[in-house]
Amino acid sequence: MEAKQHVLSILADNNPGVILRVAGLFSRRGYSIESLSAAQTENPKISRMTIVTTGDQATLEQIDKQLSKLVDVKEVKVLTTDNSVKREHVLIMAGNSETNRTALIQVANLFHANIVNVNDNSLILELTGKPRKINAFIQLIEPFGIIKMVKSGLTALERE
Amino acid sequence: MEAKQHVLSILADNNPGVILRVAGLFSRRGYSIESLSAAQTENPKISRMTIVTTGDQATLEQIDKQLSKLVDVKEVKVLTTDNSVKREHVLIMAGNSETNRTALIQVANLFHANIVNVNDNSLILELTGKPRKINAFIQLIEPFGIIKMVKSGLTALERE
Repeated sequence: MEAKQHVLSILADNNPGVILRVAGLFSRRGYSIESLSAAQTENPKISRMTIVTTGDQATLEQIDKQLSKLVDVKEVKVLTTDNSVKREHVLIMAGNSETNRTALIQVANLFHANIVNVNDNSLILELTGKPRKINAFIQLIEPFGIIKMVKSGLTALERE
Repeated sequence: MEAKQHVLSILADNNPGVILRVAGLFSRRGYSIESLSAAQTENPKISRMTIVTTGDQATLEQIDKQLSKLVDVKEVKVLTTDNSVKREHVLIMAGNSETNRTALIQVANLFHANIVNVNDNSLILELTGKPRKINAFIQLIEPFGIIKMVKSGLTALERE
């Protein structure tokens, strides 16, 4: 069966080792984790994880079932583009020289990115948006020289 | 020794199971993970993880050393408020009724939050910023009724 990218949103008791148990389940099934984001919800006892993974439909269904069986896990949802809001956040440190500064700031303005740190040699740019927009932004910044970057894992929320 | 919150930024080869190995190391040391964010960098073969954890200084140093010994791990940095830019991103679905809509949108405007989805019964609000700002925003939205929310783990980049 065809391997596709899937997004899982997992609500779980915020117990020690819960990330380990969830990640372990993916690993045992040979299901790669492309990105993972885990943090508390408005209730500090509950955390929400968003996992992006690639696999076929049958394996996805197995993963879904097995995740639901974990004692800590309260809810597992498979999110699609139609039923959810999907966002990413990126911080990029790019080289800041006299020759590229103006062009770099123009790209940042075009994307409504924030400039969150500046010094003589570098700028840190910040952008939040749909994964496609984030990837387009990274591609446009790349020629200026990316010194380092950090992308949050995908976060997503199912629409009502 | 006093337990404190620490932020670790880990650069690693994007091999299957790398998140599992890193999370396993924390678990074996009894070091809790408060948030974890892992995603590819501009090089798809390399991923960056940001982990927020609480523990004393001695345990932090052990974790740092042991992480650096993992074959996949290329760099481990302990980030402080002074040496880094720290950001979080949150999506909050709040109840949208005739009585609270105006007040809810006022809070969103006050924080320059985006409204990324609207229907008759709910709104999805989005905010990116320093952890303190994100927490203040969540507290102000709470009285309106948070239906559900997802917070990215902290992401952070060391300044030059």
